[in-house]
Amino acid sequence: MHNNYSVMHESPPICYKRFHVIPIEGKSVQVEFGDATNVADPSDALSVKRSFPLTYGQPIIHFSKRSGGVSDTHATKEHEAIRVGVVFCGRQSPGGHNIICGLYDAIKSYNPKSTLIGFCGGTEGLFAQKSIEITEDIVQTYRNQGGYDMLGRTKDQIRTSEQVKAAKDACKALNLDGLVIIGGIISNTDAAQLAETFAEEKCKTKVVGVPVTLYGDLKNQFVEANVGFDTICKVNSQLISNLCTDALSAEKYYYLIRLMGRRTSHVALECTLQSNPNMVILSEEIASSKLTLFDITKRICDAFQDRAEQDKYYGVILLPEGLIESIPELYALLQEIHVLHKKGVSADEISSQLSPWASALFEFLPLFIKKQLLLSPESDNSAQLSQIETEKLLAQLVETEMNTRTKNGTFKGKKFNSICHFFGYQARGSLPSKFDCDYAYVLGHVSYHLLAAGANGYMATVSNLKNPISEWCCGGAPLTAMMTVKRLLHGPTVSSVGKPSIHPSPVDLKGKPYQMLLHDAEKLLMNDLYRNPGPIQFKGPGSDSKAICLCVEDQDYMGRIKELQAYLEMVKMLAKPGCSQEVLTAAVSTMASVVNILSLMSPSTKGHSHS
Amino acid sequence: MHNNYSVMHESPPICYKRFHVIPIEGKSVQVEFGDATNVADPSDALSVKRSFPLTYGQPIIHFSKRSGGVSDTHATKEHEAIRVGVVFCGRQSPGGHNIICGLYDAIKSYNPKSTLIGFCGGTEGLFAQKSIEITEDIVQTYRNQGGYDMLGRTKDQIRTSEQVKAAKDACKALNLDGLVIIGGIISNTDAAQLAETFAEEKCKTKVVGVPVTLYGDLKNQFVEANVGFDTICKVNSQLISNLCTDALSAEKYYYLIRLMGRRTSHVALECTLQSNPNMVILSEEIASSKLTLFDITKRICDAFQDRAEQDKYYGVILLPEGLIESIPELYALLQEIHVLHKKGVSADEISSQLSPWASALFEFLPLFIKKQLLLSPESDNSAQLSQIETEKLLAQLVETEMNTRTKNGTFKGKKFNSICHFFGYQARGSLPSKFDCDYAYVLGHVSYHLLAAGANGYMATVSNLKNPISEWCCGGAPLTAMMTVKRLLHGPTVSSVGKPSIHPSPVDLKGKPYQMLLHDAEKLLMNDLYRNPGPIQFKGPGSDSKAICLCVEDQDYMGRIKELQAYLEMVKMLAKPGCSQEVLTAAVSTMASVVNILSLMSPSTKGHSHS
Repeated sequence: MHNNYSVMHESPPICYKRFHVIPIEGKSVQVEFGDATNVADPSDALSVKRSFPLTYGQPIIHFSKRSGGVSDTHATKEHEAIRVGVVFCGRQSPGGHNIICGLYDAIKSYNPKSTLIGFCGGTEGLFAQKSIEITEDIVQTYRNQGGYDMLGRTKDQIRTSEQVKAAKDACKALNLDGLVIIGGIISNTDAAQLAETFAEEKCKTKVVGVPVTLYGDLKNQFVEANVGFDTICKVNSQLISNLCTDALSAEKYYYLIRLMGRRTSHVALECTLQSNPNMVILSEEIASSKLTLFDITKRICDAFQDRAEQDKYYGVILLPEGLIESIPELYALLQEIHVLHKKGVSADEISSQLSPWASALFEFLPLFIKKQLLLSPESDNSAQLSQIETEKLLAQLVETEMNTRTKNGTFKGKKFNSICHFFGYQARGSLPSKFDCDYAYVLGHVSYHLLAAGANGYMATVSNLKNPISEWCCGGAPLTAMMTVKRLLHGPTVSSVGKPSIHPSPVDLKGKPYQMLLHDAEKLLMNDLYRNPGPIQFKGPGSDSKAICLCVEDQDYMGRIKELQAYLEMVKMLAKPGCSQEVLTAAVSTMASVVNILSLMSPSTKGHSHS
Repeated sequence: MHNNYSVMHESPPICYKRFHVIPIEGKSVQVEFGDATNVADPSDALSVKRSFPLTYGQPIIHFSKRSGGVSDTHATKEHEAIRVGVVFCGRQSPGGHNIICGLYDAIKSYNPKSTLIGFCGGTEGLFAQKSIEITEDIVQTYRNQGGYDMLGRTKDQIRTSEQVKAAKDACKALNLDGLVIIGGIISNTDAAQLAETFAEEKCKTKVVGVPVTLYGDLKNQFVEANVGFDTICKVNSQLISNLCTDALSAEKYYYLIRLMGRRTSHVALECTLQSNPNMVILSEEIASSKLTLFDITKRICDAFQDRAEQDKYYGVILLPEGLIESIPELYALLQEIHVLHKKGVSADEISSQLSPWASALFEFLPLFIKKQLLLSPESDNSAQLSQIETEKLLAQLVETEMNTRTKNGTFKGKKFNSICHFFGYQARGSLPSKFDCDYAYVLGHVSYHLLAAGANGYMATVSNLKNPISEWCCGGAPLTAMMTVKRLLHGPTVSSVGKPSIHPSPVDLKGKPYQMLLHDAEKLLMNDLYRNPGPIQFKGPGSDSKAICLCVEDQDYMGRIKELQAYLEMVKMLAKPGCSQEVLTAAVSTMASVVNILSLMSPSTKGHSHS
């Protein structure tokens, strides 16, 4: 591991010198502890509580800025000097550097004697205690820059007991008051585990996670968006739109584009809304409707044929990389392969040990995809999605099917000409969009305030993101409140298995963004309503654009929690002792009916205490 | 063929509403006819003259703006209404639409009754006389937009006598005074042929070509840059830089990136200068040093090994798509395959009919590349470069070689991990950069002025491009002056073959851009001096950036021609009848010595008359 910060960086042509007034800065930031948290699915509560006895059920935290300002003594007190460590976990996502910049600026602004320590080379640097003190010079070099090269990254996990122990030793050796973990679902689950262990072993280091993942799959009631997602979607959409324009100019190719995004299809959905290609097939749709490889092939063939009837022999089709795992028969095949991998069967011999059914499917597939399916699985048991060329498989199957249709006379048009693309790596290292720069920078500040408030096992959150920065709401939520438990069996004999984790949140097929897409699907397919958002802009009107999914969703959960609190307070005020009999009667009666309605709407909460 | 202009286009976030003051606008534009032109290589002159008796040796044309303005009657006269046709030929290049916008604005500004007619679907639309009148609405929709979708494109040629006749019929049927052909080397060669034929057959339509090709290979003494090249290099460099950042963040991959650009390496060279990747291998280097596939593999392996010694197991390597054809043994193999294709041998049987030597090489290659090499050649006899995955071939060969080195103990480091990319299609449809917008728009104006001046068989030119727009020099040069003749044999028995054509101009290995690269090559390889130009900007300081190759080359040929003319005029003035004997003697003596020096420097001009 080494530290790259001496590497020459030419600045991008334009780089924000200074940020907007951010909502969490200065001496008047005040901490409010809210209600204790539960988990989204009450049936998981017991299991989560058992695994995280010390960090489960903690309250949510809000930070607010006093409007008056200087009179409050709590808010204006000088912060003590603290020592904070920070580590990049998981795949590099644009904006990651700005978390550190925000954290650094916050730390230093409250006490210049506080220290920020970066671990070089990700988790491996953490375990090996390879660190550097982050200085003003380093921060200046990487402000608003893409990548994770300020510190580098390696493996995505802090999971085994040796790894957890090594992390604890590092925090003790460096005398850290806090550790900030920058990563996605896996890293934040690990952060929760680390927090619990530290609490249990009375280690003084508080652990805070930050939601940074280009896949955009760390979404829940507390987290509206992930750092990196906005940029990735913008870079991909720029390229997809270029291909749309290209397709329309020469009218001879279908571009099949696979998008990086792991198991979920958030990236594919956002890019579709940005670029309006002719078609997208989301993993979540396939999983929910249980379409087979043949069904999907047929769907593309039918679309091709419909367009051919209008003499259109070109188009753009998006596919999420997770699609392959959402196709039932391929998922089953992959599971068999992974089991054989775990048994230590070598890749060459796996095909001969498959079940007859899986073997028949496997033999049917083209050679290149066979090789890719045989790759050993990733650390989270998913296939090596970036290496499996689903787009080429589908292109080949569609071509074959169209040839068949042509032969048997059901199609009389021209050949299906396709060019395949995989977009992912080329977007990952991009300069972050203005949104990601700002969001990450604010999250860096929030992380500091969580640590300063003594919070352990929290995720830094910013909500109300679709509105201007000055209206963003900063806070924190316990990592345990985002956990669910995976079940292998459904039905009456539910058996929970595995440890509680933060799981990837799939695209909500009932959500507004997907419904928007569904509403326009037919028009997009036939009418070439291509939209070109252009390259990321650093100045001018385009620079303030945000992800469409973020803007159409009405997500402000944390804001509504506060609104509810305000209403409850008002009822207390209006009906406090001394109020008239009528008012009290009306209050009791209306509140009884509110409770009644909510009880009917909630999944069975009986037997689960509120903390 | 259809006309797409009704397609919904959402404008890019920022789009230039109005251009700078351009150097060729208003009533005071004046035409100056310069000296008659020759060809660059005097030994080709006879052959070109024979093929183009009517359009060879025409003078170069300059357009200037009268500073005074209104007094000159020639300059202020109203232009007659004319009818001009325009057609997109060749691959879509960003900025193409702005040629039409500039042409339209120029035509209408001199006479609102003039008409601009666009051929729908490229050359096929021309042959079939499918056209639309271009209106203000259409122009507004496509101003500063990428792609060729205003009119579409099809084949890249107007070559056979049937095609030439169909083109002539279309021009006659539509009563065109001028035809503007937007394209690269092939299309401009075709434009020259069309101009000659029209002149011969007394067709009134004048033909003007515009240098638009993303490959940047239409370069000569008259043409400094091609429309589209700047944008393509910027989009590719953005992505290459992202991969550099990505490589540096995770430190585990080598990215091998093949770049679209046909036979020459202009795109690869410019992208290298923009992004500073670790390594680039230019086709021209390989062709000049006759390196074999094994040599290239060894070169990459040595680089990998050198970096491994510094514990660097990541990097970025660029390859031009034309590389495969510049490797001597692969070129020979491809030639054999193409000859067999022409004989009508089917792809399946080609391998069995190769010469023993070619067959041995072919059998050595991996299956995927065999299939790609067997694809039938393009219309210009080159291989299907976009389909041949040279980067995967090299990745595989390097991996094998490194495994061998590891086995025999000459290398003790980690494995060579590579991820392959092909960048081309995703850049081609991009919104044009500001430079391409401006350059194309001005070229559109120039095209009009050439037609208004009655020029036939000319290319619209703008020189002094590296300076601000107000200093750009507009003009035209005969297409025949850019032609060369390909020879199959070299040495004393030179035999010219084929028709004179405009050939792709390779990267000049003695030129400043390549020398810059050479100078820094070792540092780039070892020190990761990655540079990130960022995405194309439409506003702010980054928006005015131009290609590095353009800026470091000192190309202003047309400007120097004018400068020379001025000096000659001054000598005439200073030594005109009436001057002193001394001055005259000094003039004669110094001019004699000038002529002497130039004669010594020039290739044998004897036997070639000046027109």
